[in-house]
Amino acid sequence: MRPEWKDFVGGKWEKEVDVRDFIQRNYTPYVGDDSFLAGPTAATTKLWAQVLELTTQEREAGGVLDMDTKIPSTITSHEAGYLNKDLEKIVGFQTDKPFKRSLQPYGGINMAKAALTTNGYKIDPGVEEFFTVHRKTHNAGVFDAYTPEMRVCRSNHIITGLPDAYGRGRIIGDYRRVALYGVDYLIKDKEEQKATTSKTMTPDVIRDREELSEQIRALKELKALGEIYGCDISKPASNVQEAIQAVYFGYLAAVKEQNGAAMSLGRTSTFIDCYAERDIKNGVFTEEQIQEFIDHFVMKLRLVKFARTPEYNALFSGDPTWVTESIGGVGIDGRPMVTKSSFRYLHTLHNMGTAPEPNMTVLWSTRLPENFKKFCAKVSIETSSVQYENDDLMRVTHGDDYAIACCVSSMRVGKEMQFFGARANLAKCLLYAINGGVDEMTGVQVGPKYRPVEGDYLNYDDVMEKYTAMMEWLAEVYVNTLNVIHYMHDKYCYERLQMALHDRKVKRYFATGIAGLSVVADSLSAIKYAKVKVVRNDVQITKKVKNPQTAKSELKVIGTAKDVVTDYEVEGDFPKYGNNDDRVDDIAVEIVKKFMAMVRSHYTYRQGVPTTSILTITSNVVYGKNTGSTPDGRVKGQPFAPGANPLHGRDTHGALASLSSVAKLPFKDAQDGISNTFTIIPNALGKEDTVFAGDLEIDLNK
Amino acid sequence: MRPEWKDFVGGKWEKEVDVRDFIQRNYTPYVGDDSFLAGPTAATTKLWAQVLELTTQEREAGGVLDMDTKIPSTITSHEAGYLNKDLEKIVGFQTDKPFKRSLQPYGGINMAKAALTTNGYKIDPGVEEFFTVHRKTHNAGVFDAYTPEMRVCRSNHIITGLPDAYGRGRIIGDYRRVALYGVDYLIKDKEEQKATTSKTMTPDVIRDREELSEQIRALKELKALGEIYGCDISKPASNVQEAIQAVYFGYLAAVKEQNGAAMSLGRTSTFIDCYAERDIKNGVFTEEQIQEFIDHFVMKLRLVKFARTPEYNALFSGDPTWVTESIGGVGIDGRPMVTKSSFRYLHTLHNMGTAPEPNMTVLWSTRLPENFKKFCAKVSIETSSVQYENDDLMRVTHGDDYAIACCVSSMRVGKEMQFFGARANLAKCLLYAINGGVDEMTGVQVGPKYRPVEGDYLNYDDVMEKYTAMMEWLAEVYVNTLNVIHYMHDKYCYERLQMALHDRKVKRYFATGIAGLSVVADSLSAIKYAKVKVVRNDVQITKKVKNPQTAKSELKVIGTAKDVVTDYEVEGDFPKYGNNDDRVDDIAVEIVKKFMAMVRSHYTYRQGVPTTSILTITSNVVYGKNTGSTPDGRVKGQPFAPGANPLHGRDTHGALASLSSVAKLPFKDAQDGISNTFTIIPNALGKEDTVFAGDLEIDLNK
Repeated sequence: MRPEWKDFVGGKWEKEVDVRDFIQRNYTPYVGDDSFLAGPTAATTKLWAQVLELTTQEREAGGVLDMDTKIPSTITSHEAGYLNKDLEKIVGFQTDKPFKRSLQPYGGINMAKAALTTNGYKIDPGVEEFFTVHRKTHNAGVFDAYTPEMRVCRSNHIITGLPDAYGRGRIIGDYRRVALYGVDYLIKDKEEQKATTSKTMTPDVIRDREELSEQIRALKELKALGEIYGCDISKPASNVQEAIQAVYFGYLAAVKEQNGAAMSLGRTSTFIDCYAERDIKNGVFTEEQIQEFIDHFVMKLRLVKFARTPEYNALFSGDPTWVTESIGGVGIDGRPMVTKSSFRYLHTLHNMGTAPEPNMTVLWSTRLPENFKKFCAKVSIETSSVQYENDDLMRVTHGDDYAIACCVSSMRVGKEMQFFGARANLAKCLLYAINGGVDEMTGVQVGPKYRPVEGDYLNYDDVMEKYTAMMEWLAEVYVNTLNVIHYMHDKYCYERLQMALHDRKVKRYFATGIAGLSVVADSLSAIKYAKVKVVRNDVQITKKVKNPQTAKSELKVIGTAKDVVTDYEVEGDFPKYGNNDDRVDDIAVEIVKKFMAMVRSHYTYRQGVPTTSILTITSNVVYGKNTGSTPDGRVKGQPFAPGANPLHGRDTHGALASLSSVAKLPFKDAQDGISNTFTIIPNALGKEDTVFAGDLEIDLNK
Repeated sequence: MRPEWKDFVGGKWEKEVDVRDFIQRNYTPYVGDDSFLAGPTAATTKLWAQVLELTTQEREAGGVLDMDTKIPSTITSHEAGYLNKDLEKIVGFQTDKPFKRSLQPYGGINMAKAALTTNGYKIDPGVEEFFTVHRKTHNAGVFDAYTPEMRVCRSNHIITGLPDAYGRGRIIGDYRRVALYGVDYLIKDKEEQKATTSKTMTPDVIRDREELSEQIRALKELKALGEIYGCDISKPASNVQEAIQAVYFGYLAAVKEQNGAAMSLGRTSTFIDCYAERDIKNGVFTEEQIQEFIDHFVMKLRLVKFARTPEYNALFSGDPTWVTESIGGVGIDGRPMVTKSSFRYLHTLHNMGTAPEPNMTVLWSTRLPENFKKFCAKVSIETSSVQYENDDLMRVTHGDDYAIACCVSSMRVGKEMQFFGARANLAKCLLYAINGGVDEMTGVQVGPKYRPVEGDYLNYDDVMEKYTAMMEWLAEVYVNTLNVIHYMHDKYCYERLQMALHDRKVKRYFATGIAGLSVVADSLSAIKYAKVKVVRNDVQITKKVKNPQTAKSELKVIGTAKDVVTDYEVEGDFPKYGNNDDRVDDIAVEIVKKFMAMVRSHYTYRQGVPTTSILTITSNVVYGKNTGSTPDGRVKGQPFAPGANPLHGRDTHGALASLSSVAKLPFKDAQDGISNTFTIIPNALGKEDTVFAGDLEIDLNK
């Protein structure tokens, strides 16, 4: 056994990369309470005060404190950066100083430039020229292959939030491997993989070989990144501090390479705890020291920052990085995977106060230790900073070493990844069905020129038939748009380092998503159970044109679409989604199943396994803004409900009925996650001492 | 009809891109003699003197006069350059001045850097870093995907001259289209092609769409290149000067983008003649003026220069560009395609003296007009600068609008292209068969560990069986190596502009090549008809290692290969290839057929149609240098015969017998061309007035 692994229980993990096997043989479940936890050290307090000061400065500077305008970010592009070198126990920033955002043009030079410009910085002209003329970006590649139909779908918001101008994210490198095996071993492993590809050089084999070469190169750079900070991560970590540092270097290399929409961390706390337990047993470190390492690690994760545009931030209602860390859960052998370090991770919210990132996500099971449940509740009450997901449900599909990417996308760490696919606006699709493919807001013929509905009143069977046909069209153009995106992302913005921390054979989820589900369900319910009268109007057809004077895009009227249904009058009441009423809930279920079946019927890039999500925790506002009035009485521009939620105020039969409606949605047809944003007031939970206060966001993942 | 086309005979070519149709309807065959030709104008003489002066300076400077070290070459990368703006009737250089070689790193930054360094220049460090870190090159991509087996084959010279560090060349854009249609029409055509791809976004469709986008972008840049020189090539050319200029801009854009091993021009003289005839008829230009345009055009073609390394120049015995122009031939309707401009092109060799480039290639037919034949003979005698190829043979396969790329590769202009594939050393392969895959020079186990021959004497059946198996191995690794190369060339060094001047549906030849055919035939003949005794020796195994002190590669002995057959003693005589003796000629034919069948059995990239060539006009020297002694008595290191030639001195039965042996090789199994370098002394041709003097290189292409 390697000396760094002394006192660990050996097994399969010694002979091949298998972090799960290591964890299962070595972790120590903890059922006790939080009384062992240590407060912040003086160093932690001092460093965090420094962070708060810089945060204030950043806010005062308009949201950004400093930006790199010249050096395209790579794993080794920058010298070491520190808050205070002497105090930091875990080191490493994306650039040569904290709060300085890096320049990441691989996803798209226009986006990178706009992120600078809108924040008052100016991109180096040489870099701009190079990435325009000689080094194509993901964004440029995508737009070279897009069809006019894809572009019009995009600009009319029937397909939205596509990762075609920035990194797709939703890939979790198994950063723990860096600590457990050291980089040299991982390089050797990848070299062996490369040595055993097929000899017949088809494009797929050539691509695999090139990707493996890139992965090996990235691992070598990762080692160099360690050296920049004076750390040798070529060998396995020999104690908990080194282990945390190695995991962080892996993650840091990823965020230096990729400006993904969601750069999640994985499931590290129980892994780290194996080292912490050993070091405490051997008297290497004290509880206070270990908590300090974790505090400093989390502090670094809090300071992950990307250069982004105001539009991006508007879409996501903030500046999220989704550094999601999945904590707890139960093993498939029945032992809870809660350790002291699960507590320590959450305890950072006490030691350094509340924070949106890292996105601490408890994998919730009814079988979690009671003390941990109580501690979670306490932290939630005090900080409103904990996310919960259903481990009992996901464990069935993913086993006990999966993690959450972004907010609800579950995947086995290092074995599965996701091609992120944003979402299709199913509510707008319904309006297209009614208007024969004409957009109700812009008057543009976006969908196929199918026959629009005729007459003054909507007929359920007629609308359903038209809607089914329009969804067929939408599913096809949507999947093909994603095929283009992921082909180009692999070509121009490949996640070398993250994929280097995956197995050879990776399962790729081809994620799609839907928005506006409750609006669709309610609208179809209204058509079926009430009477819906249509209101037709002429709609001015507008086109974005660049004003040559201002060089800005302006909407120009270029024609009129006649007799477009733009409004609806609902006569009578109808069952509404969110009240545990099968009449409407069944419609929601039917739509999800239908659309998913349509998605599955199309070719997907790289044998991607199609999934969908019902998940728009924040962007539902933007989607609603771009969608006209709907037959359920929702007025043009009003927000959709988030995720799979009932539309605000329509769930009138109490929390349980509302949750029951959502719970009917089939996980197997929405395997990328179903989110339900749910606010509970204390009284709703009874009269116990420990009550929830504040908002609790529940991701049902059912 | 467009005004620029006035007086042309209309037809299908007006409605769609079809240059052949235009030529066939509009060219005027010329059967007269050369008495109409005009001498050089004062401007031509003055400009050419300037070129000679610069050539002298270039030679004195060591072979290179000036190099760009900073601006990666693109179609529009440089300002206009002139010899003497007032005198030049056809304008345009690769950079902003004549004799300044451009920087072309897309094929490989190492090669581009070495080309600078070895000529005493220094690459801009920013450019080097960008093309190392951020912008991958063809060369880097190839080496990421190569297997160790491919690398060892390459470094042991069993597969040689692979275009993996520079542009593959052998693609001819139909530059005539620029003149006939103008760039705007060509853009529209490509946009229509893009609008009608499949809707299912498989990787192939996405690639096609991206390539079409790149082609459209390249055409837009081509228009901009015209603007840089004050020329509007968006519209069709309206006279012969504009037509020549437009053709040249098309070609210039290609050589600004691609540093291909062979950047051939196509078949332009008869096309140009349509304009010349019209202008003369209409009194627009005089003969003298038209000759001046052609002289200035050819002068520009003579000045095409690339930045290359000494090794490259050694392999090709010079600094060739293979600006091959195919002249003459006969139409499939029986009319000779010789025009006055066919004479004018060749006449440039009088007006400006002899020159290796452009590679003036007469498509020879027995049915060419007698006067033209005589004129060709005359020019050949006076300049030794004309190449001849068999039109009667190639017309059968390619029709009457094909051209030669490089020296013998025939392809329909704008409809077919070639993936250039260098060649496999079949003579060395025979030695591998004898030695069980061990290289006779380096001692390295390169091929599979098959059983070597045993005993002191070679047995024909035994050797043939072993050779067949070794060829099977070689064909597989060779084809797969080429698959890697062409995949990466498309990915990192795509010929945007040249492919923009092709039809939508392009036939791609997947060219392979063989070297050492006559050595193989003679060796097998010796084994069969004489007695060949083997001589075994130990061979030191050497490996190239970098000396850390000097940073140069050195050969280091790392072991010994025991009992390698390194020499042969031939007892008795045997039939030798080149004497019209079926006993050995049949062996040559059998080897060609066998190897080609093996090549055909493997997957080829992009539906490439496998072909092979027997063609090593110059590099046969290098191939021989890297090949040990052979059973035919050829001594280690001695040159092979060029192409399909008999080994020097072995064709003892006269010219006809020698040619007859070569003529037996099957064109259908060597469709990329069979070359025979043949020197004729005047007396061999009879006692006529007009005699050949000097060397005549005949490419049989049979």
